[in-house]
Amino acid sequence: MDTSTIRALTFDVFGTVVDWRNSIIEEGKRLEVEWGIEVDWARFADQWRGGYEPAMAQVRNGELPWTTIDRLHRMILDDLLDRHDITGLSEGQKDYLNRVWHRLSPWPDAVEGLERVRNHFIVASLSNGNVSLLTNMAKHAGLPWDCVLSAEFSKRYKPDPEVYTTAVELLGLQADQVMMVAAHEHDLRGAQAVGMKTAYVSRPEEFGSGRAQDVLYGLPSFDLFATDFLDLSEKLGV
Amino acid sequence: MDTSTIRALTFDVFGTVVDWRNSIIEEGKRLEVEWGIEVDWARFADQWRGGYEPAMAQVRNGELPWTTIDRLHRMILDDLLDRHDITGLSEGQKDYLNRVWHRLSPWPDAVEGLERVRNHFIVASLSNGNVSLLTNMAKHAGLPWDCVLSAEFSKRYKPDPEVYTTAVELLGLQADQVMMVAAHEHDLRGAQAVGMKTAYVSRPEEFGSGRAQDVLYGLPSFDLFATDFLDLSEKLGV
Repeated sequence: MDTSTIRALTFDVFGTVVDWRNSIIEEGKRLEVEWGIEVDWARFADQWRGGYEPAMAQVRNGELPWTTIDRLHRMILDDLLDRHDITGLSEGQKDYLNRVWHRLSPWPDAVEGLERVRNHFIVASLSNGNVSLLTNMAKHAGLPWDCVLSAEFSKRYKPDPEVYTTAVELLGLQADQVMMVAAHEHDLRGAQAVGMKTAYVSRPEEFGSGRAQDVLYGLPSFDLFATDFLDLSEKLGV
Repeated sequence: MDTSTIRALTFDVFGTVVDWRNSIIEEGKRLEVEWGIEVDWARFADQWRGGYEPAMAQVRNGELPWTTIDRLHRMILDDLLDRHDITGLSEGQKDYLNRVWHRLSPWPDAVEGLERVRNHFIVASLSNGNVSLLTNMAKHAGLPWDCVLSAEFSKRYKPDPEVYTTAVELLGLQADQVMMVAAHEHDLRGAQAVGMKTAYVSRPEEFGSGRAQDVLYGLPSFDLFATDFLDLSEKLGV
């Protein structure tokens, strides 16, 4: 594709930049020893993430007022702790566990890939995560954002159009000067709907081995397909 | 002071981090040669900056709807070009000149000072500049923000309280966990009014030699005074 008009790349974060599932499993195993609790952390991680779309839907349809992901994660966590019969955690421990989402680790190619494209484009997050979550995560994982953009600025969740149009406006650009990068089709469809360019990056391990849910077969209506961020950088010609 | 409760530092940008006056003079001299125009750039810079507070006041008192600094800068610039009898610039040239505010250079100690404090605190801009201006400037000047915070998020201008409270909320912190750093008393008073900590950094050359306007004599009601960002880092004990 002709990339000469593109000035900025905006990245989905959970699953696209960071490996939430293995990060939670690893931290969980560490806490298991430290706190003396026993959990199937892979299942726990999947259930935690599984509660995310329904919780955002409650905000989207007005059942809940605007609520940050930190708060939604905590609501889901409190419910999960009950369901897994994990009792006796202090408020401080629950808060610490909830903030595991601030401490997720990047996919192996992510930081180097971001550094490469950053030499040529404005590079920003565009995540449903709140600003403090994304800021702490960037510091933890060394993600070199030029700026942190979040659904929090429009108080709407992707794929609602306001999230994308607000980001484009904050960047001072036209929609077709900004390329959304994500491992999820619905996110790219949302960006496409407001006129942004789109790059699909495949993350087949996001939901664990053999459980890829968002790998596309054919139907190439996005501007660019990449196997990881290094491939993205090459396909962008930088 | 006891800095153990501070988690984030928010920085005023124009005058505190970057030397707007000499940056405009230097770029102006370059454009003078390239574009064949003749201007007293020191006077031009002072007048441009001088139009800034009155323009923000028009937004504050409702004469103008929310208008970004990029647009305010351009309104002032168009007026100044008239007053200086500079004619014949194309729209592209005017836009380029207006975006000199995206290309300002940091004070000599700024980048190293920010890097030092960034190892211990969240480090963010908190400027009346719009997000794209601050993002482009950070890239140009190598300012290592953990996140870009701007008056644009509250659509109010400092020292209105909403700018500070919105920043504190986006950082996910309490007001007294955030320290505002600025070379201007009115900015720190605004931060103080919402309960933030305050650090005054002296920038006696901001308005040109011998024209220091915001150097404080006595009245030490701020939490910390520093001569530059390296001194700030030392006074914060990091």
